Amino acid sequence: MQFDSLDDISTFCRDLPDGDGRMAEAATLRQQNLTKPPGSLGRLEELAIWLARWQRRERPQLDRVTIAVFAGNHGVAARGVSAYPSDVTAQMLANFNAGGAAINQIARISGAELRAVPLALDRPTRDFTVAAAMDAAEFLEAVDTGYRTVPKDCDLLAVGEMGIANTTIAATLCAALLGGGAERWAGRGTGVDDAGLVRKRAAIDAALDHHRGILHDPLEVAAALGGRELAAIAGAVLAARHHRIPVLLDGFVATAAILPLARLQSGVTDHCRAGHVSAEAAHRALLQELGLEPLLDLNMRLGEASGAGVAILLLRAAAACHSGMATFSEAGVSGADK
Amino acid sequence: MQFDSLDDISTFCRDLPDGDGRMAEAATLRQQNLTKPPGSLGRLEELAIWLARWQRRERPQLDRVTIAVFAGNHGVAARGVSAYPSDVTAQMLANFNAGGAAINQIARISGAELRAVPLALDRPTRDFTVAAAMDAAEFLEAVDTGYRTVPKDCDLLAVGEMGIANTTIAATLCAALLGGGAERWAGRGTGVDDAGLVRKRAAIDAALDHHRGILHDPLEVAAALGGRELAAIAGAVLAARHHRIPVLLDGFVATAAILPLARLQSGVTDHCRAGHVSAEAAHRALLQELGLEPLLDLNMRLGEASGAGVAILLLRAAAACHSGMATFSEAGVSGADK
Repeated sequence: MQFDSLDDISTFCRDLPDGDGRMAEAATLRQQNLTKPPGSLGRLEELAIWLARWQRRERPQLDRVTIAVFAGNHGVAARGVSAYPSDVTAQMLANFNAGGAAINQIARISGAELRAVPLALDRPTRDFTVAAAMDAAEFLEAVDTGYRTVPKDCDLLAVGEMGIANTTIAATLCAALLGGGAERWAGRGTGVDDAGLVRKRAAIDAALDHHRGILHDPLEVAAALGGRELAAIAGAVLAARHHRIPVLLDGFVATAAILPLARLQSGVTDHCRAGHVSAEAAHRALLQELGLEPLLDLNMRLGEASGAGVAILLLRAAAACHSGMATFSEAGVSGADK
Repeated sequence: MQFDSLDDISTFCRDLPDGDGRMAEAATLRQQNLTKPPGSLGRLEELAIWLARWQRRERPQLDRVTIAVFAGNHGVAARGVSAYPSDVTAQMLANFNAGGAAINQIARISGAELRAVPLALDRPTRDFTVAAAMDAAEFLEAVDTGYRTVPKDCDLLAVGEMGIANTTIAATLCAALLGGGAERWAGRGTGVDDAGLVRKRAAIDAALDHHRGILHDPLEVAAALGGRELAAIAGAVLAARHHRIPVLLDGFVATAAILPLARLQSGVTDHCRAGHVSAEAAHRALLQELGLEPLLDLNMRLGEASGAGVAILLLRAAAACHSGMATFSEAGVSGADK
């Protein structure tokens, strides 16, 4: 176990391992000498420098890329907050294992290894409108599973999730830690109808009311109002930070999963980039709160790391340009007129 | 020669070969049965259906992808409208051939074949502030080169360009065919300074004034106010239409290159998608005029098909999900609650 208590997580976040500023500077200098007008590769330049900082290499590599998809079930699903029944979580995990889901195809195209990790699917969290979803021990167990999922030697980690009803969980975490209530954070998720959306908002507001005594404490919120797959994502992001592995976040749920960490300590997302912004409107608002600018905006809303998986492709382009392009002097190309 | 006169191009555009609506319908139906909430892959679904329509296959393939980069030089460069000297066009072509440019790395990552095609680099177009840039014969020769560059059997074409001073050409075409003058369409291109931007705007306005008698005729504008690499892009896009090959457009210059065709006949861009929107502000305005929604927005402004090349990766993800995912019945996954 990496973390024996919530305090252990707080301690880790107070003294975060940092990237390598010298390698970021060296990569910046290299970008300025490549055969292109300075800055003309836009975000591809920024991404290469970000990879260099966290991989501590002037020329970053993407030899081993891991996509981790965590799956969990939620007591609040019984309140009719989703368009799909909870059985679908396990069915989709079987689909991941059989290679039939979107993320299987995207992992293949992006040259990534997929780790699909179920978290006690037959033991949903408690309905958080009337009880704590998880106690501290259950929460830490899920964080630990996420932490241990990350290979120490991987060059890049993409994180995502599967869990019927978990946009309700994500919206609740946002409302609890950022304010604004269900109105601000609840959307249609996978496609809930009008009546379902009313039930979803009611469940969120009920949960906020029931747990109003702990809303000041991000980690207690993450346990009592969260979910196992979200806790595992937080654990994976902490492991990546420990090993200085850059991270691509997927959609609304995956981003909400790290919100408790970000509220504990600013800077906790410095090694993370948002792979995309999803069609769930709350995701854009959450990214703005976290100061994250998404790489893609393709109107996706599937989860299962699909948006982050597609964004891996952009990192491959960024790293290939950074390492493979000739410099002005190597190519005998004239610079800008002075 | 495919086109012996400007009228031949007009005739082609009046009777455009169309995609296959039945295959688009079949692909749409397939998307609805894949193991995901309907529509949850967002633009990846739309892209798969678009590929199916133009490839006339329910499951599109991307076995042979061609990136065509056309290079030309411009008489107006002598007016100091660019941050770089005209020599750089040929130097960058040599860099393409040596594998040192951004597009070489991006072509490799995206699994595409790169065709870098110089168009009479030692014979710049005439300075269009005082003469026609090209006569009809010169224009048609460049269109023909572009047309012949496209392999009949390729599954996807991405088009881009290299040519010092050619954002001045692109801005002039936009101003001539869409109105608004230099003020609306001229930006900093590869990074021209304030004085250069003043010279650029003056050159554009002088050209509009000199050629005011022909601004009603899109193809005469394309010859007198255009450039060889832009004419070649138009030719390549016509060839792709003839062979029903879907096309990814690169940035401002590549998009401006097809504007004369779009002004001749609406629907001419139906087989085209905008790979990205560049940092050149005029590009966003031009895409809106053409009804094209860019796939990427990464603040790139390099040209040489770099943005379209990165967008190929999104098409690979779209096609892989479309063809590789299991359906609900294949995977034994429950659908949405009714």
